[in-house]
Amino acid sequence: MSDLLHEAGLARDYLKRVGEIAELRLNEHLPPETVAPHRLHEAMRYSMFAGGKRLRPALTFAAFEAFQGKGDAIWLASSALEMLHTFSLIHDDLPCMDDDDFRRGMPTAHKKYGEATAVLSGDALCIHAFGLLARTGSAQVVGEIAHSLGTYGMIGGQMIDIESEGKPVSLETVDYIHYHKTAALIEASLVVGAILAGATPEEIQPIREYGHAIGLAFQVVDDILDIEQTTEQLGKDAGSDLEKGKATYPSVIGIEASKKKAVELYNTSIAALERSTADTKVMRSIAAFIVTRVY
Amino acid sequence: MSDLLHEAGLARDYLKRVGEIAELRLNEHLPPETVAPHRLHEAMRYSMFAGGKRLRPALTFAAFEAFQGKGDAIWLASSALEMLHTFSLIHDDLPCMDDDDFRRGMPTAHKKYGEATAVLSGDALCIHAFGLLARTGSAQVVGEIAHSLGTYGMIGGQMIDIESEGKPVSLETVDYIHYHKTAALIEASLVVGAILAGATPEEIQPIREYGHAIGLAFQVVDDILDIEQTTEQLGKDAGSDLEKGKATYPSVIGIEASKKKAVELYNTSIAALERSTADTKVMRSIAAFIVTRVY
Repeated sequence: MSDLLHEAGLARDYLKRVGEIAELRLNEHLPPETVAPHRLHEAMRYSMFAGGKRLRPALTFAAFEAFQGKGDAIWLASSALEMLHTFSLIHDDLPCMDDDDFRRGMPTAHKKYGEATAVLSGDALCIHAFGLLARTGSAQVVGEIAHSLGTYGMIGGQMIDIESEGKPVSLETVDYIHYHKTAALIEASLVVGAILAGATPEEIQPIREYGHAIGLAFQVVDDILDIEQTTEQLGKDAGSDLEKGKATYPSVIGIEASKKKAVELYNTSIAALERSTADTKVMRSIAAFIVTRVY
Repeated sequence: MSDLLHEAGLARDYLKRVGEIAELRLNEHLPPETVAPHRLHEAMRYSMFAGGKRLRPALTFAAFEAFQGKGDAIWLASSALEMLHTFSLIHDDLPCMDDDDFRRGMPTAHKKYGEATAVLSGDALCIHAFGLLARTGSAQVVGEIAHSLGTYGMIGGQMIDIESEGKPVSLETVDYIHYHKTAALIEASLVVGAILAGATPEEIQPIREYGHAIGLAFQVVDDILDIEQTTEQLGKDAGSDLEKGKATYPSVIGIEASKKKAVELYNTSIAALERSTADTKVMRSIAAFIVTRVY
Protein backbone atom coordinates (compact mmCIF):
# COMPACT_ATOMS: atom_id res chain seq x y z
CA MET A 1 0.00 0.00 0.00
CA SER A 2 2.79 2.46 0.79
CA ASP A 3 4.30 1.71 -2.66
CA LEU A 4 0.94 2.50 -4.19
CA LEU A 5 0.76 5.81 -2.32
CA HIS A 6 4.30 6.67 -3.41
CA GLU A 7 3.36 5.95 -7.05
CA ALA A 8 0.18 7.99 -6.66
CA GLY A 9 2.31 10.90 -5.44
CA LEU A 10 4.35 10.76 -8.65
CA ALA A 11 1.12 10.87 -10.65
CA ARG A 12 -0.08 13.88 -8.66
CA ASP A 13 3.11 15.74 -9.58
CA TYR A 14 2.64 14.74 -13.22
CA LEU A 15 -1.02 15.81 -13.23
CA LYS A 16 -0.01 19.16 -11.75
CA ARG A 17 2.79 19.70 -14.26
CA VAL A 18 0.87 18.63 -17.38
CA GLY A 19 -2.31 20.24 -16.04
CA GLU A 20 -0.60 23.66 -15.94
CA ILE A 21 0.44 23.42 -19.59
CA ALA A 22 -2.98 22.03 -20.53
CA GLU A 23 -4.65 25.06 -18.88
CA LEU A 24 -2.49 27.50 -20.81
CA ARG A 25 -3.31 25.73 -24.06
CA LEU A 26 -7.01 25.57 -23.21
CA ASN A 27 -6.96 29.32 -22.71
CA GLU A 28 -5.46 29.74 -26.19
CA HIS A 29 -7.88 27.24 -27.75
CA LEU A 30 -11.10 28.68 -26.31
CA PRO A 31 -12.77 31.62 -28.06
CA PRO A 32 -12.23 34.90 -26.15
CA GLU A 33 -14.97 36.57 -24.10
CA THR A 34 -14.23 39.85 -25.89
CA VAL A 35 -15.71 38.44 -29.13
CA ALA A 36 -19.43 37.78 -29.91
CA PRO A 37 -21.34 35.83 -28.74
CA HIS A 38 -19.78 37.22 -25.53
CA ARG A 39 -22.03 35.63 -22.94
CA LEU A 40 -21.72 32.20 -24.54
CA HIS A 41 -17.94 32.44 -24.63
CA GLU A 42 -18.00 33.57 -20.99
CA ALA A 43 -20.17 30.58 -20.03
CA MET A 44 -17.88 28.15 -21.87
CA ARG A 45 -14.86 29.54 -20.04
CA TYR A 46 -16.68 29.54 -16.70
CA SER A 47 -17.27 25.78 -16.92
CA MET A 48 -13.82 25.05 -18.38
CA PHE A 49 -11.98 26.88 -15.63
CA ALA A 50 -14.12 25.78 -12.69
CA GLY A 51 -11.39 23.40 -11.54
CA GLY A 52 -10.98 19.76 -12.43
CA LYS A 53 -8.09 17.33 -12.35
CA ARG A 54 -7.29 17.64 -16.10
CA LEU A 55 -7.02 13.84 -16.04
CA ARG A 56 -7.80 13.36 -19.75
CA PRO A 57 -5.13 15.84 -20.95
CA ALA A 58 -2.62 14.13 -18.64
CA LEU A 59 -3.56 10.68 -19.96
CA THR A 60 -3.34 11.66 -23.61
CA PHE A 61 0.02 13.33 -23.00
CA ALA A 62 1.29 10.33 -20.99
CA ALA A 63 0.49 7.97 -23.89
CA PHE A 64 2.05 10.42 -26.35
CA GLU A 65 5.26 10.61 -24.29
CA ALA A 66 5.30 6.83 -23.76
CA PHE A 67 5.72 6.44 -27.53
CA GLN A 68 8.20 9.34 -27.82
CA GLY A 69 5.66 11.57 -29.59
CA LYS A 70 6.93 14.88 -30.94
CA GLY A 71 5.20 18.11 -31.96
CA ASP A 72 2.36 20.34 -30.84
CA ALA A 73 -0.74 18.50 -32.14
CA ILE A 74 -1.07 16.67 -28.82
CA TRP A 75 -2.15 19.91 -27.13
CA LEU A 76 -5.00 20.32 -29.62
CA ALA A 77 -6.15 16.86 -28.54
CA SER A 78 -5.66 17.58 -24.83
CA SER A 79 -7.80 20.73 -25.07
CA ALA A 80 -10.43 18.89 -27.10
CA LEU A 81 -10.65 16.05 -24.57
CA GLU A 82 -11.10 18.41 -21.65
CA MET A 83 -13.79 20.34 -23.58
CA LEU A 84 -15.63 17.11 -24.37
CA HIS A 85 -15.50 16.05 -20.73
CA THR A 86 -16.83 19.46 -19.64
CA PHE A 87 -19.57 19.34 -22.31
CA SER A 88 -20.76 16.06 -20.79
CA LEU A 89 -20.75 17.49 -17.25
CA ILE A 90 -22.73 20.61 -18.28
CA HIS A 91 -25.45 18.54 -19.96
CA ASP A 92 -25.47 15.90 -17.18
CA ASP A 93 -26.07 18.63 -14.60
CA LEU A 94 -29.14 20.05 -16.41
CA PRO A 95 -32.49 20.03 -14.55
CA CYS A 96 -33.89 17.45 -17.00
CA MET A 97 -30.90 15.15 -16.33
CA ASP A 98 -29.20 14.88 -12.91
CA ASP A 99 -30.42 18.33 -11.79
CA ASP A 100 -27.25 19.28 -9.90
CA ASP A 101 -26.77 22.78 -8.50
CA PHE A 102 -23.09 22.51 -7.61
CA ARG A 103 -20.02 21.07 -9.28
CA ARG A 104 -16.49 21.40 -7.87
CA GLY A 105 -17.89 23.74 -5.21
CA MET A 106 -19.29 26.23 -7.74
CA PRO A 107 -22.79 26.77 -9.18
CA THR A 108 -23.35 24.58 -12.24
CA ALA A 109 -23.60 26.23 -15.68
CA HIS A 110 -27.40 26.36 -15.75
CA LYS A 111 -27.57 27.83 -12.22
CA LYS A 112 -25.10 30.53 -13.21
CA TYR A 113 -26.19 31.30 -16.81
CA GLY A 114 -29.64 29.75 -17.25
CA GLU A 115 -30.64 26.57 -19.02
CA ALA A 116 -30.59 27.80 -22.62
CA THR A 117 -27.03 29.11 -22.34
CA ALA A 118 -25.96 25.93 -20.54
CA VAL A 119 -27.32 23.70 -23.32
CA LEU A 120 -25.66 25.87 -25.97
CA SER A 121 -22.33 26.11 -24.12
CA GLY A 122 -22.22 22.30 -23.91
CA ASP A 123 -23.06 22.03 -27.62
CA ALA A 124 -20.43 24.65 -28.45
CA LEU A 125 -17.69 22.92 -26.43
CA CYS A 126 -18.46 19.63 -28.18
CA ILE A 127 -18.35 21.22 -31.64
CA HIS A 128 -15.29 23.31 -30.84
CA ALA A 129 -13.49 20.17 -29.65
CA PHE A 130 -14.10 18.47 -33.00
CA GLY A 131 -12.71 21.56 -34.71
CA LEU A 132 -9.52 21.24 -32.65
CA LEU A 133 -9.27 17.51 -33.38
CA ALA A 134 -9.60 18.29 -37.10
CA ARG A 135 -6.59 20.59 -36.74
CA THR A 136 -4.44 17.58 -35.76
CA GLY A 137 -4.92 16.58 -39.42
CA SER A 138 -5.89 13.04 -38.37
CA ALA A 139 -9.36 11.87 -39.41
CA GLN A 140 -8.57 8.68 -37.45
CA VAL A 141 -8.34 10.69 -34.23
CA VAL A 142 -11.71 12.35 -34.97
CA GLY A 143 -13.27 8.93 -35.58
CA GLU A 144 -11.82 7.38 -32.41
CA ILE A 145 -13.19 10.20 -30.26
CA ALA A 146 -16.59 10.29 -31.99
CA HIS A 147 -16.99 6.56 -31.35
CA SER A 148 -16.07 6.89 -27.67
CA LEU A 149 -18.60 9.70 -27.20
CA GLY A 150 -21.64 8.55 -29.19
CA THR A 151 -24.45 6.12 -28.48
CA TYR A 152 -21.94 3.27 -28.28
CA GLY A 153 -19.94 5.32 -25.79
CA MET A 154 -20.52 8.19 -23.36
CA ILE A 155 -23.99 9.31 -24.52
CA GLY A 156 -25.16 5.68 -24.53
CA GLY A 157 -23.95 5.31 -20.93
CA GLN A 158 -25.71 8.50 -19.87
CA MET A 159 -28.96 7.32 -21.49
CA ILE A 160 -28.97 3.96 -19.69
CA ASP A 161 -27.90 5.72 -16.46
CA ILE A 162 -30.97 7.97 -16.61
CA GLU A 163 -33.28 5.10 -17.59
CA SER A 164 -31.99 3.02 -14.64
CA GLU A 165 -32.56 5.66 -11.97
CA GLY A 166 -34.62 4.39 -9.06
CA LYS A 167 -34.86 0.88 -10.51
CA PRO A 168 -33.19 -2.33 -9.30
CA VAL A 169 -30.28 -2.97 -11.69
CA SER A 170 -27.95 -5.86 -12.41
CA LEU A 171 -24.15 -5.78 -12.17
CA GLU A 172 -24.15 -6.09 -15.96
CA THR A 173 -26.10 -2.82 -16.26
CA VAL A 174 -23.75 -0.98 -13.88
CA ASP A 175 -20.80 -2.30 -15.89
CA TYR A 176 -22.48 -1.05 -19.08
CA ILE A 177 -23.18 2.41 -17.65
CA HIS A 178 -19.74 2.89 -16.11
CA TYR A 179 -17.81 1.61 -19.08
CA HIS A 180 -19.75 3.73 -21.56
CA LYS A 181 -20.29 6.85 -19.49
CA THR A 182 -16.79 7.19 -18.07
CA ALA A 183 -14.26 4.62 -19.27
CA ALA A 184 -14.78 4.97 -23.02
CA LEU A 185 -13.50 8.58 -23.20
CA ILE A 186 -10.63 7.81 -20.79
CA GLU A 187 -9.62 4.89 -23.02
CA ALA A 188 -9.91 7.08 -26.13
CA SER A 189 -7.76 9.81 -24.53
CA LEU A 190 -4.91 7.31 -24.23
CA VAL A 191 -5.44 5.85 -27.69
CA VAL A 192 -5.41 9.29 -29.30
CA GLY A 193 -2.12 10.17 -27.58
CA ALA A 194 -0.62 6.95 -28.92
CA ILE A 195 -1.99 7.55 -32.46
CA LEU A 196 -0.57 11.08 -32.54
CA ALA A 197 2.82 9.69 -31.46
CA GLY A 198 2.69 7.29 -34.41
CA ALA A 199 2.12 4.05 -32.49
CA THR A 200 0.95 0.99 -34.48
CA PRO A 201 -2.37 -0.80 -33.82
CA GLU A 202 -0.42 -3.61 -32.09
CA GLU A 203 1.34 -1.11 -29.85
CA ILE A 204 -1.95 0.63 -29.08
CA GLN A 205 -3.86 -2.49 -28.01
CA PRO A 206 -2.35 -2.89 -24.48
CA ILE A 207 -2.76 0.86 -23.90
CA ARG A 208 -6.44 0.53 -24.84
CA GLU A 209 -6.86 -2.32 -22.34
CA TYR A 210 -5.10 -0.28 -19.66
CA GLY A 211 -7.46 2.62 -20.40
CA HIS A 212 -10.52 0.39 -20.21
CA ALA A 213 -9.44 -0.87 -16.77
CA ILE A 214 -8.46 2.46 -15.22
CA GLY A 215 -11.53 4.13 -16.72
CA LEU A 216 -13.79 1.64 -14.96
CA ALA A 217 -11.67 1.88 -11.78
CA PHE A 218 -12.07 5.66 -11.86
CA GLN A 219 -15.85 5.36 -11.78
CA VAL A 220 -15.89 2.61 -9.11
CA VAL A 221 -13.79 4.88 -6.88
CA ASP A 222 -16.14 7.78 -7.69
CA ASP A 223 -19.07 5.68 -6.45
CA ILE A 224 -17.19 4.86 -3.23
CA LEU A 225 -16.18 8.48 -2.61
CA ASP A 226 -19.78 9.61 -3.06
CA ILE A 227 -20.60 7.50 0.01
CA GLU A 228 -17.48 7.94 2.15
CA GLN A 229 -16.55 11.59 1.60
CA THR A 230 -18.25 14.78 2.77
CA THR A 231 -19.86 17.35 0.50
CA GLU A 232 -17.00 19.74 1.31
CA GLN A 233 -14.35 17.21 0.29
CA LEU A 234 -16.14 16.43 -2.97
CA GLY A 235 -17.18 19.97 -3.98
CA LYS A 236 -20.56 18.49 -4.88
CA ASP A 237 -23.38 16.91 -2.89
CA ALA A 238 -22.12 13.77 -1.09
CA GLY A 239 -24.52 10.85 -1.03
CA SER A 240 -26.33 12.18 -4.07
CA ASP A 241 -26.06 8.86 -5.95
CA LEU A 242 -28.02 7.12 -3.21
CA GLU A 243 -30.55 9.94 -2.99
CA LYS A 244 -31.17 9.83 -6.75
CA GLY A 245 -31.34 6.03 -6.84
CA LYS A 246 -28.33 5.93 -9.20
CA ALA A 247 -26.98 2.60 -10.44
CA THR A 248 -23.58 2.31 -8.69
CA TYR A 249 -21.22 -0.51 -7.73
CA PRO A 250 -21.78 -0.07 -3.97
CA SER A 251 -25.57 -0.18 -4.46
CA VAL A 252 -25.32 -3.46 -6.38
CA ILE A 253 -22.39 -5.34 -4.79
CA GLY A 254 -21.76 -3.40 -1.54
CA ILE A 255 -18.89 -1.14 -0.55
CA GLU A 256 -16.29 -3.76 0.38
CA ALA A 257 -16.75 -5.69 -2.86
CA SER A 258 -16.53 -2.36 -4.72
CA LYS A 259 -13.16 -1.63 -3.11
CA LYS A 260 -11.98 -5.10 -4.08
CA LYS A 261 -13.22 -4.46 -7.64
CA ALA A 262 -11.14 -1.26 -7.81
CA VAL A 263 -8.00 -3.15 -6.80
CA GLU A 264 -8.72 -5.91 -9.34
CA LEU A 265 -9.09 -3.29 -12.08
CA TYR A 266 -5.81 -1.71 -10.97
CA ASN A 267 -4.13 -5.12 -11.32
CA THR A 268 -5.70 -5.62 -14.75
CA SER A 269 -4.41 -2.23 -15.87
CA ILE A 270 -0.85 -3.00 -14.71
CA ALA A 271 -0.95 -6.42 -16.42
CA ALA A 272 -1.93 -4.68 -19.67
CA LEU A 273 0.97 -2.24 -19.34
CA GLU A 274 3.34 -5.17 -18.84
CA ARG A 275 2.44 -6.31 -22.36
CA SER A 276 3.39 -2.88 -23.75
CA THR A 277 6.74 -2.08 -25.34
CA ALA A 278 6.35 1.64 -24.50
CA ASP A 279 7.73 3.52 -21.51
CA THR A 280 4.79 3.02 -19.16
CA LYS A 281 6.13 4.47 -15.89
CA VAL A 282 3.80 7.49 -15.83
CA MET A 283 0.76 5.43 -16.78
CA ARG A 284 1.55 3.00 -13.93
CA SER A 285 1.60 5.88 -11.48
CA ILE A 286 -1.67 7.30 -12.79
CA ALA A 287 -3.35 3.91 -12.19
CA ALA A 288 -2.12 4.06 -8.58
CA PHE A 289 -3.46 7.61 -8.24
CA ILE A 290 -6.86 6.57 -9.57
CA VAL A 291 -7.40 3.78 -7.04
CA THR A 292 -6.04 5.70 -4.04
CA ARG A 293 -7.53 9.14 -4.72
CA VAL A 294 -9.74 10.74 -2.08
CA TYR A 295 -11.18 13.59 -4.25
CA MET B 1 -41.22 35.05 -62.77
CA SER B 2 -42.46 32.11 -64.89
CA ASP B 3 -38.81 31.28 -65.70
CA LEU B 4 -38.07 31.28 -61.99
CA LEU B 5 -40.98 28.92 -61.32
CA HIS B 6 -39.82 26.63 -64.11
CA GLU B 7 -36.30 26.55 -62.61
CA ALA B 8 -37.77 25.91 -59.14
CA GLY B 9 -39.64 22.92 -60.58
CA LEU B 10 -36.35 21.43 -61.78
CA ALA B 11 -34.92 21.89 -58.27
CA ARG B 12 -37.97 20.16 -56.75
CA ASP B 13 -37.36 17.14 -58.99
CA TYR B 14 -33.69 17.16 -57.98
CA LEU B 15 -34.52 17.46 -54.27
CA LYS B 16 -36.91 14.53 -54.59
CA ARG B 17 -34.43 12.36 -56.47
CA VAL B 18 -31.40 13.10 -54.26
CA GLY B 19 -33.59 13.12 -51.17
CA GLU B 20 -34.64 9.52 -51.79
CA ILE B 21 -31.03 8.33 -51.99
CA ALA B 22 -30.09 10.48 -48.99
CA GLU B 23 -32.89 8.83 -46.94
CA LEU B 24 -31.66 5.34 -47.81
CA ARG B 25 -28.13 6.28 -46.81
CA LEU B 26 -29.32 7.94 -43.61
CA ASN B 27 -31.07 4.73 -42.69
CA GLU B 28 -27.80 2.84 -43.16
CA HIS B 29 -25.78 5.45 -41.27
CA LEU B 30 -28.03 5.70 -38.20
CA PRO B 31 -27.62 3.13 -35.40
CA PRO B 32 -30.47 0.56 -35.42
CA GLU B 33 -33.27 0.61 -32.85
CA THR B 34 -32.65 -3.07 -32.19
CA VAL B 35 -29.35 -2.25 -30.48
CA ALA B 36 -28.84 -0.60 -27.03
CA PRO B 37 -29.50 2.13 -26.08
CA HIS B 38 -32.77 1.29 -27.86
CA ARG B 39 -34.91 4.22 -26.82
CA LEU B 40 -32.19 6.72 -27.71
CA HIS B 41 -31.73 5.18 -31.16
CA GLU B 42 -35.50 5.24 -31.60
CA ALA B 43 -35.63 8.94 -30.65
CA MET B 44 -32.80 9.79 -33.07
CA ARG B 45 -34.62 8.02 -35.89
CA TYR B 46 -37.95 9.61 -34.97
CA SER B 47 -36.50 13.10 -35.45
CA MET B 48 -34.47 12.15 -38.52
CA PHE B 49 -37.45 10.65 -40.34
CA ALA B 50 -40.06 13.24 -39.34
CA GLY B 51 -40.00 14.74 -42.83
CA GLY B 52 -37.85 17.58 -44.04
CA LYS B 53 -36.73 18.79 -47.45
CA ARG B 54 -33.24 17.17 -47.23
CA LEU B 55 -31.95 20.48 -48.59
CA ARG B 56 -28.43 20.12 -47.16
CA PRO B 57 -27.84 16.65 -48.65
CA ALA B 58 -29.09 17.97 -52.01
CA LEU B 59 -26.79 21.01 -51.82
CA THR B 60 -23.69 19.00 -50.91
CA PHE B 61 -24.42 16.52 -53.70
CA ALA B 62 -25.11 19.34 -56.19
CA ALA B 63 -21.70 20.90 -55.46
CA PHE B 64 -20.06 17.46 -55.65
CA GLU B 65 -21.64 16.78 -59.04
CA ALA B 66 -20.84 20.29 -60.29
CA PHE B 67 -17.13 19.43 -59.93
CA GLN B 68 -17.55 15.89 -61.35
CA GLY B 69 -17.00 14.26 -57.94
CA LYS B 70 -16.72 10.48 -57.87
CA GLY B 71 -17.12 7.90 -55.12
CA ASP B 72 -19.27 7.21 -52.08
CA ALA B 73 -17.80 9.54 -49.44
CA ILE B 74 -20.29 12.25 -50.39
CA TRP B 75 -23.13 10.21 -48.83
CA LEU B 76 -21.29 10.11 -45.50
CA ALA B 77 -21.24 13.91 -45.68
CA SER B 78 -24.89 14.15 -46.77
CA SER B 79 -26.02 12.02 -43.82
CA ALA B 80 -23.81 13.98 -41.43
CA LEU B 81 -25.21 17.33 -42.64
CA GLU B 82 -28.80 16.21 -42.19
CA MET B 83 -28.00 14.86 -38.70
CA LEU B 84 -26.39 18.16 -37.74
CA HIS B 85 -29.39 20.12 -39.01
CA THR B 86 -31.74 17.84 -37.03
CA PHE B 87 -29.55 18.12 -33.90
CA SER B 88 -29.99 21.90 -34.10
CA LEU B 89 -33.77 21.62 -34.49
CA ILE B 90 -34.13 19.23 -31.52
CA HIS B 91 -32.18 21.54 -29.21
CA ASP B 92 -33.87 24.70 -30.58
CA ASP B 93 -37.29 23.21 -29.84
CA LEU B 94 -36.47 22.48 -26.15
CA PRO B 95 -38.60 24.18 -23.47
CA CYS B 96 -35.60 26.28 -22.33
CA MET B 97 -35.06 27.48 -25.94
CA ASP B 98 -37.95 28.13 -28.37
CA ASP B 99 -40.34 25.78 -26.52
CA ASP B 100 -42.03 24.38 -29.62
CA ASP B 101 -44.49 21.48 -29.38
CA PHE B 102 -44.78 20.71 -33.09
CA ARG B 103 -42.36 20.47 -35.99
CA ARG B 104 -43.37 19.36 -39.49
CA GLY B 105 -46.83 18.50 -38.12
CA MET B 106 -45.49 16.04 -35.54
CA PRO B 107 -44.75 16.35 -31.79
CA THR B 108 -41.20 17.63 -31.20
CA ALA B 109 -38.62 15.25 -29.70
CA HIS B 110 -39.05 16.42 -26.11
CA LYS B 111 -42.85 16.19 -26.34
CA LYS B 112 -42.57 12.64 -27.63
CA TYR B 113 -39.61 11.29 -25.58
CA GLY B 114 -39.10 13.74 -22.72
CA GLU B 115 -36.48 16.41 -22.30
CA ALA B 116 -33.54 14.27 -21.17
CA THR B 117 -33.83 11.96 -24.17
CA ALA B 118 -34.27 14.95 -26.48
CA VAL B 119 -31.08 16.62 -25.22
CA LEU B 120 -29.16 13.34 -25.54
CA SER B 121 -30.54 12.50 -28.98
CA GLY B 122 -29.41 15.92 -30.21
CA ASP B 123 -25.97 15.40 -28.67
CA ALA B 124 -25.77 11.91 -30.18
CA LEU B 125 -26.72 13.09 -33.69
CA CYS B 126 -24.06 15.80 -33.51
CA ILE B 127 -21.37 13.35 -32.36
CA HIS B 128 -22.46 10.66 -34.79
CA ALA B 129 -22.26 13.18 -37.63
CA PHE B 130 -18.64 13.94 -36.80
CA GLY B 131 -17.94 10.20 -36.81
CA LEU B 132 -19.35 9.99 -40.34
CA LEU B 133 -17.36 13.03 -41.47
CA ALA B 134 -14.20 11.37 -40.08
CA ARG B 135 -14.96 8.38 -42.30
CA THR B 136 -14.58 10.61 -45.40
CA GLY B 137 -10.88 10.62 -44.40
CA SER B 138 -10.75 14.42 -44.75
CA ALA B 139 -9.81 16.37 -41.62
CA GLN B 140 -10.43 19.50 -43.72
CA VAL B 141 -14.09 18.55 -44.10
CA VAL B 142 -14.39 18.03 -40.33
CA GLY B 143 -12.83 21.43 -39.70
CA GLU B 144 -15.07 23.22 -42.22
CA ILE B 145 -18.22 21.81 -40.64
CA ALA B 146 -17.06 22.40 -37.05
CA HIS B 147 -16.42 26.04 -37.89
CA SER B 148 -19.85 26.50 -39.50
CA LEU B 149 -21.57 25.00 -36.44
CA GLY B 150 -19.69 26.50 -33.49
CA THR B 151 -19.85 29.85 -31.73
CA TYR B 152 -18.74 31.60 -34.95
CA GLY B 153 -21.53 29.76 -36.77
CA MET B 154 -24.85 28.12 -35.97
CA ILE B 155 -24.59 27.99 -32.16
CA GLY B 156 -23.48 31.63 -32.11
CA GLY B 157 -26.55 32.56 -34.16
CA GLN B 158 -28.86 30.64 -31.85
CA MET B 159 -27.34 32.35 -28.79
CA ILE B 160 -27.87 35.87 -30.17
CA ASP B 161 -31.35 34.83 -31.40
CA ILE B 162 -32.37 33.86 -27.86
CA GLU B 163 -30.76 36.94 -26.32
CA SER B 164 -32.61 39.19 -28.79
CA GLU B 165 -36.09 37.79 -28.13
CA GLY B 166 -38.62 40.46 -27.27
CA LYS B 167 -36.10 43.27 -27.70
CA PRO B 168 -35.89 45.91 -30.44
CA VAL B 169 -33.09 44.80 -32.76
CA SER B 170 -31.12 46.39 -35.59
CA LEU B 171 -30.91 45.06 -39.14
CA GLU B 172 -27.26 44.27 -38.36
CA THR B 173 -28.37 41.92 -35.56
CA VAL B 174 -30.92 40.15 -37.76
CA ASP B 175 -28.23 39.74 -40.42
CA TYR B 176 -25.88 38.29 -37.77
CA ILE B 177 -28.51 35.85 -36.46
CA HIS B 178 -29.69 34.67 -39.88
CA TYR B 179 -26.24 34.30 -41.35
CA HIS B 180 -24.89 32.36 -38.38
CA LYS B 181 -27.97 30.33 -37.47
CA THR B 182 -28.97 29.24 -40.95
CA ALA B 183 -26.67 30.32 -43.76
CA ALA B 184 -23.34 29.11 -42.30
CA LEU B 185 -24.27 25.39 -42.43
CA ILE B 186 -25.88 25.76 -45.87
CA GLU B 187 -22.69 27.39 -47.13
CA ALA B 188 -20.57 24.65 -45.52
CA SER B 189 -22.75 21.93 -47.11
CA LEU B 190 -21.82 23.25 -50.54
CA VAL B 191 -18.15 23.77 -49.67
CA VAL B 192 -17.84 20.21 -48.35
CA GLY B 193 -19.34 18.78 -51.55
CA ALA B 194 -16.80 20.76 -53.57
CA ILE B 195 -13.89 19.70 -51.31
CA LEU B 196 -14.85 16.02 -51.60
CA ALA B 197 -14.96 16.40 -55.40
CA GLY B 198 -11.39 17.74 -55.28
CA ALA B 199 -12.14 21.39 -56.12
CA THR B 200 -9.38 23.94 -55.47
CA PRO B 201 -9.78 26.88 -53.03
CA GLU B 202 -10.15 29.22 -56.05
CA GLU B 203 -12.89 27.02 -57.49
CA ILE B 204 -14.63 26.83 -54.10
CA GLN B 205 -14.78 30.59 -53.48
CA PRO B 206 -17.75 31.43 -55.80
CA ILE B 207 -19.64 28.39 -54.47
CA ARG B 208 -19.09 29.68 -50.93
CA GLU B 209 -20.48 33.09 -51.95
CA TYR B 210 -23.47 31.43 -53.60
CA GLY B 211 -24.07 29.42 -50.39
CA HIS B 212 -23.86 32.54 -48.24
CA ALA B 213 -26.49 34.28 -50.38
CA ILE B 214 -28.96 31.40 -50.72
CA GLY B 215 -28.52 30.54 -47.02
CA LEU B 216 -29.59 34.05 -46.06
CA ALA B 217 -32.36 34.01 -48.67
CA PHE B 218 -33.65 30.74 -47.21
CA GLN B 219 -34.08 32.36 -43.80
CA VAL B 220 -35.61 35.58 -45.15
CA VAL B 221 -38.22 33.47 -46.98
CA ASP B 222 -38.76 31.46 -43.78
CA ASP B 223 -39.56 34.69 -41.94
CA ILE B 224 -42.04 35.71 -44.67
CA LEU B 225 -43.74 32.30 -44.72
CA ASP B 226 -44.17 32.41 -40.94
CA ILE B 227 -46.39 35.45 -41.48
CA GLU B 228 -48.15 34.60 -44.76
CA GLN B 229 -48.79 30.86 -44.45
CA THR B 230 -51.19 28.94 -42.23
CA THR B 231 -50.19 26.52 -39.47
CA GLU B 232 -51.40 23.64 -41.65
CA GLN B 233 -49.24 24.70 -44.58
CA LEU B 234 -46.16 25.08 -42.39
CA GLY B 235 -46.59 21.99 -40.18
CA LYS B 236 -45.67 24.24 -37.25
CA ASP B 237 -47.34 27.18 -35.54
CA ALA B 238 -47.74 30.05 -38.03
CA GLY B 239 -47.07 33.51 -36.65
CA SER B 240 -44.92 32.08 -33.88
CA ASP B 241 -42.00 34.43 -34.66
CA LEU B 242 -44.18 37.43 -33.95
CA GLU B 243 -45.68 35.85 -30.86
CA LYS B 244 -42.23 35.09 -29.43
CA GLY B 245 -40.85 38.51 -30.35
CA LYS B 246 -38.23 36.89 -32.62
CA ALA B 247 -35.78 39.05 -34.54
CA THR B 248 -36.86 38.63 -38.18
CA TYR B 249 -36.49 40.61 -41.40
CA PRO B 250 -40.20 41.48 -41.62
CA SER B 251 -40.19 42.74 -38.02
CA VAL B 252 -37.24 45.04 -38.74
CA ILE B 253 -37.70 46.17 -42.36
CA GLY B 254 -41.31 45.17 -43.14
CA ILE B 255 -42.65 42.44 -45.40
CA GLU B 256 -42.29 44.18 -48.78
CA ALA B 257 -38.66 45.12 -48.15
CA SER B 258 -38.06 41.51 -46.98
CA LYS B 259 -39.39 40.18 -50.29
CA LYS B 260 -37.13 42.60 -52.13
CA LYS B 261 -34.20 41.42 -50.00
CA ALA B 262 -34.90 37.78 -50.97
CA VAL B 263 -34.80 38.70 -54.67
CA GLU B 264 -31.56 40.66 -54.19
CA LEU B 265 -29.98 37.66 -52.48
CA TYR B 266 -31.15 35.44 -55.33
CA ASN B 267 -29.45 37.81 -57.80
CA THR B 268 -26.26 37.82 -55.69
CA SER B 269 -26.23 34.02 -55.66
CA ILE B 270 -26.61 33.81 -59.45
CA ALA B 271 -23.86 36.40 -59.95
CA ALA B 272 -21.55 34.26 -57.79
CA LEU B 273 -22.34 31.16 -59.88
CA GLU B 274 -21.51 33.12 -63.02
CA ARG B 275 -17.94 33.44 -61.71
CA SER B 276 -17.71 29.65 -61.29
CA THR B 277 -16.10 27.31 -63.81
CA ALA B 278 -18.21 24.36 -62.58
CA ASP B 279 -21.48 23.06 -64.03
CA THR B 280 -23.86 25.20 -61.96
CA LYS B 281 -27.23 24.37 -63.56
CA VAL B 282 -28.61 22.51 -60.53
CA MET B 283 -27.38 25.12 -58.08
CA ARG B 284 -29.12 27.83 -60.17
CA SER B 285 -32.37 25.95 -59.96
CA ILE B 286 -32.06 25.43 -56.19
CA ALA B 287 -31.64 29.20 -55.75
CA ALA B 288 -34.91 29.67 -57.68
CA PHE B 289 -36.61 27.06 -55.49
CA ILE B 290 -35.43 28.79 -52.32
CA VAL B 291 -36.90 32.20 -53.19
CA THR B 292 -40.17 30.87 -54.61
CA ARG B 293 -40.93 28.12 -52.08
CA VAL B 294 -44.20 28.19 -50.17
CA TYR B 295 -43.35 25.53 -47.52
